[in-house]
Amino acid sequence: MIRAGIVGGTGYTGVELLRLLALHREVDVVAITSRAEAGRRVDDLFPNLRGHFDLVFAEPDVALLAACDVVFFATPHNVAMQLVPELLAGGTRVIDLSADYRIRDAALWSQWYGEPHASPDLLPQAVYGLPEVNRDRIREAQLVACPGCYPTAIQLGWIPLLARGLVDPATLIASAASGASGAGRQARIDNLLSEVAGSFKAYGVGGHRHLPEIEQGLGDVSGAPVAVTFVPHLLPIVRGIHATLFARLHGPAGDLQALYEDYYADEPFVDVLPRGMFPQTRTVKGANRCQLSIMVPQDRDTVVVMSTIDNLVKGASGQALQNMNIMFDLPEQTGLDLVGLLP
Amino acid sequence: MIRAGIVGGTGYTGVELLRLLALHREVDVVAITSRAEAGRRVDDLFPNLRGHFDLVFAEPDVALLAACDVVFFATPHNVAMQLVPELLAGGTRVIDLSADYRIRDAALWSQWYGEPHASPDLLPQAVYGLPEVNRDRIREAQLVACPGCYPTAIQLGWIPLLARGLVDPATLIASAASGASGAGRQARIDNLLSEVAGSFKAYGVGGHRHLPEIEQGLGDVSGAPVAVTFVPHLLPIVRGIHATLFARLHGPAGDLQALYEDYYADEPFVDVLPRGMFPQTRTVKGANRCQLSIMVPQDRDTVVVMSTIDNLVKGASGQALQNMNIMFDLPEQTGLDLVGLLP
Amino acid sequence: MIRAGIVGGTGYTGVELLRLLALHREVDVVAITSRAEAGRRVDDLFPNLRGHFDLVFAEPDVALLAACDVVFFATPHNVAMQLVPELLAGGTRVIDLSADYRIRDAALWSQWYGEPHASPDLLPQAVYGLPEVNRDRIREAQLVACPGCYPTAIQLGWIPLLARGLVDPATLIASAASGASGAGRQARIDNLLSEVAGSFKAYGVGGHRHLPEIEQGLGDVSGAPVAVTFVPHLLPIVRGIHATLFARLHGPAGDLQALYEDYYADEPFVDVLPRGMFPQTRTVKGANRCQLSIMVPQDRDTVVVMSTIDNLVKGASGQALQNMNIMFDLPEQTGLDLVGLLP
Amino acid sequence: MIRAGIVGGTGYTGVELLRLLALHREVDVVAITSRAEAGRRVDDLFPNLRGHFDLVFAEPDVALLAACDVVFFATPHNVAMQLVPELLAGGTRVIDLSADYRIRDAALWSQWYGEPHASPDLLPQAVYGLPEVNRDRIREAQLVACPGCYPTAIQLGWIPLLARGLVDPATLIASAASGASGAGRQARIDNLLSEVAGSFKAYGVGGHRHLPEIEQGLGDVSGAPVAVTFVPHLLPIVRGIHATLFARLHGPAGDLQALYEDYYADEPFVDVLPRGMFPQTRTVKGANRCQLSIMVPQDRDTVVVMSTIDNLVKGASGQALQNMNIMFDLPEQTGLDLVGLLP
Repeated sequence: MIRAGIVGGTGYTGVELLRLLALHREVDVVAITSRAEAGRRVDDLFPNLRGHFDLVFAEPDVALLAACDVVFFATPHNVAMQLVPELLAGGTRVIDLSADYRIRDAALWSQWYGEPHASPDLLPQAVYGLPEVNRDRIREAQLVACPGCYPTAIQLGWIPLLARGLVDPATLIASAASGASGAGRQARIDNLLSEVAGSFKAYGVGGHRHLPEIEQGLGDVSGAPVAVTFVPHLLPIVRGIHATLFARLHGPAGDLQALYEDYYADEPFVDVLPRGMFPQTRTVKGANRCQLSIMVPQDRDTVVVMSTIDNLVKGASGQALQNMNIMFDLPEQTGLDLVGLLP
Repeated sequence: MIRAGIVGGTGYTGVELLRLLALHREVDVVAITSRAEAGRRVDDLFPNLRGHFDLVFAEPDVALLAACDVVFFATPHNVAMQLVPELLAGGTRVIDLSADYRIRDAALWSQWYGEPHASPDLLPQAVYGLPEVNRDRIREAQLVACPGCYPTAIQLGWIPLLARGLVDPATLIASAASGASGAGRQARIDNLLSEVAGSFKAYGVGGHRHLPEIEQGLGDVSGAPVAVTFVPHLLPIVRGIHATLFARLHGPAGDLQALYEDYYADEPFVDVLPRGMFPQTRTVKGANRCQLSIMVPQDRDTVVVMSTIDNLVKGASGQALQNMNIMFDLPEQTGLDLVGLLP
Repeated sequence: MIRAGIVGGTGYTGVELLRLLALHREVDVVAITSRAEAGRRVDDLFPNLRGHFDLVFAEPDVALLAACDVVFFATPHNVAMQLVPELLAGGTRVIDLSADYRIRDAALWSQWYGEPHASPDLLPQAVYGLPEVNRDRIREAQLVACPGCYPTAIQLGWIPLLARGLVDPATLIASAASGASGAGRQARIDNLLSEVAGSFKAYGVGGHRHLPEIEQGLGDVSGAPVAVTFVPHLLPIVRGIHATLFARLHGPAGDLQALYEDYYADEPFVDVLPRGMFPQTRTVKGANRCQLSIMVPQDRDTVVVMSTIDNLVKGASGQALQNMNIMFDLPEQTGLDLVGLLP
Repeated sequence: MIRAGIVGGTGYTGVELLRLLALHREVDVVAITSRAEAGRRVDDLFPNLRGHFDLVFAEPDVALLAACDVVFFATPHNVAMQLVPELLAGGTRVIDLSADYRIRDAALWSQWYGEPHASPDLLPQAVYGLPEVNRDRIREAQLVACPGCYPTAIQLGWIPLLARGLVDPATLIASAASGASGAGRQARIDNLLSEVAGSFKAYGVGGHRHLPEIEQGLGDVSGAPVAVTFVPHLLPIVRGIHATLFARLHGPAGDLQALYEDYYADEPFVDVLPRGMFPQTRTVKGANRCQLSIMVPQDRDTVVVMSTIDNLVKGASGQALQNMNIMFDLPEQTGLDLVGLLP
């Protein structure tokens, strides 16, 4: 059994990790920390977990975590980078769901997150945890930086086109939308039901923190500088990300449907939908899956890709477990053979 | 023109007062206060009001408010009772949307609100602002205590039965549900969209602060002690209260439909629906209206009344304006001739 | 492997059966029928199932179904009772999710469903599939009639009180609410998002078809005639039933919390919440679980029970699989060890 | 008083017309037709209208309608074009909310709507009812074709940029989203709450019927051929359209905020939000208003415009009344001085 610890278990990615781990037969959760809720039973805060865990939130404590085989950080940014050096030094492997190790360039990280990076020396060894790109490196990694939710949906959507050099990487446009759970379980007026329900809006148009991560990842695939106009929107739903991606074709595109099906043929968690079927966030709700469609409207020169994930699963906790399965040589689908909750 | 002031304009009853006052031709809003937002334009916080008001939030200041003909308190409890004595002394009339003056018994108030009442000497002159019961006293009042949202829906639902002595007042049961705006515009995890959307729950089952107010009001109508089992629920919607009311008939009830239609025949804002039609919260959304249905299922001995209002309108700000119209001898429907936003 | 067939696989209980069966290792779905969708791939209609089944809807055909060990009817009423006699005669066991065999009295059934019963001779052998009441009889049954969704939540809520004779069975009041999936996947204006979203209403107040089933089941437990005033409401959510139950205590009740915890101590799918915690529909979403709370507000003489289930799981397809597990001597939790999808 | 008739009053644009006309003091609704609901009281179908109208649905009858000064068609396409010729011949003015007269080219219309146009000879005299473009022609028009909802939001968003020639008209991208009321009040499985709630998807990516209308209108403004990649999405809300518009700047753009504020300075129903504030569908809910923002993310060469309307008001019935006010020489804001319902 893998002994796992979770730092920051009171947020939505934390409870989702627990939901998934309850179904994962190779993992034993031995520690879960929360400064605010220390001493409280986990299933008192999250009654969906009653009967599945007998856990109490503990004060964050490195010794406790260092006894684990793997520690998940389900924290806001600027927490993991304080604790990870000590954990790695002790031989514990780390899967960070936060943004701390996603961007290789510490200066760029500081520019977007507004503070210096606390352990920039670890950035070179951190592996960006998008298995569809980095599976082999993840296997050996001591520190995996799980991608953000938008970056997962958007990169998976564009990678085949960019890898094949079919579109202009300098004029990419991503219009994406996320459910409110993406904003986390924090007391903010902006995320009240009375503010969000029955409404829709763009936000962060001037610059969302996921933008440099997206451009870094797509640049790697493309081999050329990538520029994305990225507009995120807030959906009045709990879970789900939908990205609508626009790119200019260099020329006649050929059979893009076949390209996508072929590109992702061996990927267990990327599902290219049949021609004419478009993804819906609900069909992947609760599942570790990205569903994709591609089309060229009116046969003009703009290609549209639609990509959807559950932001808490393939966009966070499910992907973290997928990475863990790879790191610990388990079958990649272990504990992740989930079906979307439709309706 | 009536010169009006609003204390606590940053909450949902505050912005709703402004929405309604924008359509009211006899009122000039001359002051709106908020400690937290002082100096900010009102329509910067609430962009729906752009073009309708040229107002800036001011620090709460008695002198400013005392220059008004009427001051509305759209505040949490324990604000109005600190300021009202001075305002009344200066001749300004007060319409309090909070709970401070709803309960006549200061000791009972303290028991439910957990602190001493700051101006108990004003309780005898405060008029409970349910026009369907107290219209004449409201006309002369200097201080009107607007009913809570649940108490409005529930009292209007039961008044005809209790006034006629048709049901047992000691075994009343109210199962009611409210949209999340009833919890106010405050940063609380419990009211996040991700906590409330797609779900339903009871709360406050052990004792909700609206209970003593309901029992007081129904006791007045009934002339006998009233006991209500009151279970509120949280709806994953923004606006709307629906109360489902159960009472035991003393005996054969006669034509209750006719009783209700007759009882409320002259009330402009109480609408008894035709036999067989049940109310929906959406048909009163945005309107100052209570819609009611009554029936005796299976012709047994329990009568069911369904009563619905918009908690921010007939349950708060609309009722406050209805009271103002009465106090200032305006036609009661002035500015309140609104149609529910369906769909 | 159990060879299973599904009649009526295009509705919500059908797709939910498939979602659950995808995770159930002892069952092979060999036939799924739909007259309207015959020839269409199941995962074309329900893309959440892609990769989990390789099934095509077939025309309803008794020979096909008779080759199964068990057939589920996920149909509207009046379908199963036409086909079941022939299936039973051939030795196939039947689990009927519809209303056809829930009521023992054929005349009563006809009165509520508006037509004669097609196979009244089978009613005596049909076992009402509420395992918490009938586990032993279910084990031997050839024909199980799964309870309705409201009846499941309501009966589980009241059974301990009635079994112990603590409340008046003649004045029970059930105020319950269901998500829209309870109305099925049928094209009706009343169930459009634009009609239901952001609103709440009662319906069927004069008499809902689940009433006789509730009174029959509770009467069995109580040993005395039971009368329930039952008011269902429509929630603007997809999944979930919440029942708020009111009953008059005969006298001092003792420790009802302990009574409930004791009564359901061995039930794997009934979870009595700790004192002071109330159920929410979201904590059981997707899980085969009933969560319950009990309290006596103000220590008066009315006891309130809150009971919540996912109408498609413990209220339909999950309960059907629970019955199947019992019938086929599998551990009762097989394939049902699910965690509610929170948030 | 203007005598008005409404054809097709049972849909959402019909009931919305009535809601708005209830507040309009210069109009008397003398006829409302519906084949399906003939003989039924309007407020029986739409209880929000109780007390505001004393109307009964009538069979469609040209004589009845011909007695009106103006007739609104709140119908699906292919109804108005059958009746309008006779009405115009009799001197009744027509405001068509459907698609029948929006496209000047009858062949193009047929291509998108799949049937021949029934009165192509009227197309030259039909005026496209976007007052911000055609106010003077609307004043004299006998037949006004109200724009579609998406076309209203999208055209108002792009017009200043195209009129000034600042962007490339051949590579426009519109990612837009609509509430479910845009799909009308029709019994379709796709629009059930259980299908739409908690989800988000694109639809009509291959070609939505509003595309030719958008390209026609923008082409008029631009003076050059316009090509738009238009992807509509379905929002799990009732009302609201949000368009996110992307265009490539020809070069340095200058102060686009000032351009937009200046361009729409005299428009009563177009509100350019202050720099840094983005529109939300809820702030225009129930109001006849388009709120707009403009920005150039990262100061690159793509300009983003966000434009929001209530699809039933500025996107349909409100715009229809705005057109009527212009046609009948009333102040343009008559009956339309509405405030968005926030929260």
